[in-house]
Amino acid sequence: MAYELYYWPGIQGRGEFVRLALEEAGAEYVDVVRTRGGMAAMAALMDGKGGGHPPFAPPFLKDGDLVVGQTAAILFYLGPRLGLAPADEAGRLWVHQIQLTIADLVAEAHDTHHPIDADLYYEDQKPEAAWRARGFRENQNPRLPGLVRAAADVQSGRQRSLGRGGADLCRSVAVPGGGGAAICLPAFHRACLALHAARGCLA
Amino acid sequence: MAYELYYWPGIQGRGEFVRLALEEAGAEYVDVVRTRGGMAAMAALMDGKGGGHPPFAPPFLKDGDLVVGQTAAILFYLGPRLGLAPADEAGRLWVHQIQLTIADLVAEAHDTHHPIDADLYYEDQKPEAAWRARGFRENQNPRLPGLVRAAADVQSGRQRSLGRGGADLCRSVAVPGGGGAAICLPAFHRACLALHAARGCLA
Repeated sequence: MAYELYYWPGIQGRGEFVRLALEEAGAEYVDVVRTRGGMAAMAALMDGKGGGHPPFAPPFLKDGDLVVGQTAAILFYLGPRLGLAPADEAGRLWVHQIQLTIADLVAEAHDTHHPIDADLYYEDQKPEAAWRARGFRENQNPRLPGLVRAAADVQSGRQRSLGRGGADLCRSVAVPGGGGAAICLPAFHRACLALHAARGCLA
Repeated sequence: MAYELYYWPGIQGRGEFVRLALEEAGAEYVDVVRTRGGMAAMAALMDGKGGGHPPFAPPFLKDGDLVVGQTAAILFYLGPRLGLAPADEAGRLWVHQIQLTIADLVAEAHDTHHPIDADLYYEDQKPEAAWRARGFRENQNPRLPGLVRAAADVQSGRQRSLGRGGADLCRSVAVPGGGGAAICLPAFHRACLALHAARGCLA
């Protein structure tokens, strides 16, 4: 049976991380909310009308009767099934840690454009955004080599056991959630460039 | 062998979520950085001197040769081992989703005091904090019932299979990471009170 992905249509956001994994693996899936009646189907599941545990927020994945929410949890579930992560517990947890760290980084990159309120436009909080971005550039960079090292580690030594997982992780990094605006960030660009330089992982 | 927890001494932060789980289960563990030489031991592991994968940031847990970083990943690892989460995949993923959602909420609560820069004092960003807190109170509350429902669900119907996991989750919610200041937030208080009212889970 095809996987069902539920996410807001028209934005990349957190759902894009799941789409990339499904696309990378060539998995059979339906992007439900981009189909006719999809929004109502998503609302019904969130209201608990699908049985089981209603997910808290999109994105979530439906695989038969199982519904999994939270981007990192979805990727953790899909990883070994799609051949994008090792099947053994230690390897799987390691990839999960990298994914959670990437999620932290993406959330921080997002907040440089929306430091005050994610529901307000960037234009409504530009001075605060500039201030937050300064701290992000100055304080985040020392932490980035660790992430680069981790991704490069996945990409190189563990490439054989991971299959295409390393490339997928890097591509996920290069497509920030929370709107395309974050990709303009110099610091984020530097991180992506460093990742690419380390392994040429988008080649 | 005792678990080894590595986290900054003197703050609750994200490490407290792991401490609570270990304490709740009565597990044997060492809070390494609160022992003599512990800070150097933590630095050595982060520098990759412990072999295996160096963790990106505290908190991390060492269990024999395995090192697991990221709060949610640590709790995912410990859950079934400590009898705090179901052992089956679906149940385990469900508790993980709740934990990740709590982590999102705690990060947002933290940022109401540090909207611009986590390295700056609250006093250095008070007007911005007040603005962000307003959005948090107004925009977050509609989402809280979902979390309350999820926690109550864990606490009630699944109490038997979860053992003490539900109570532990609720206690984790009541002890926000990123400094004690966040606990003063009216919205966060309301969330905790709602959780307590729903299940009396701190009784």
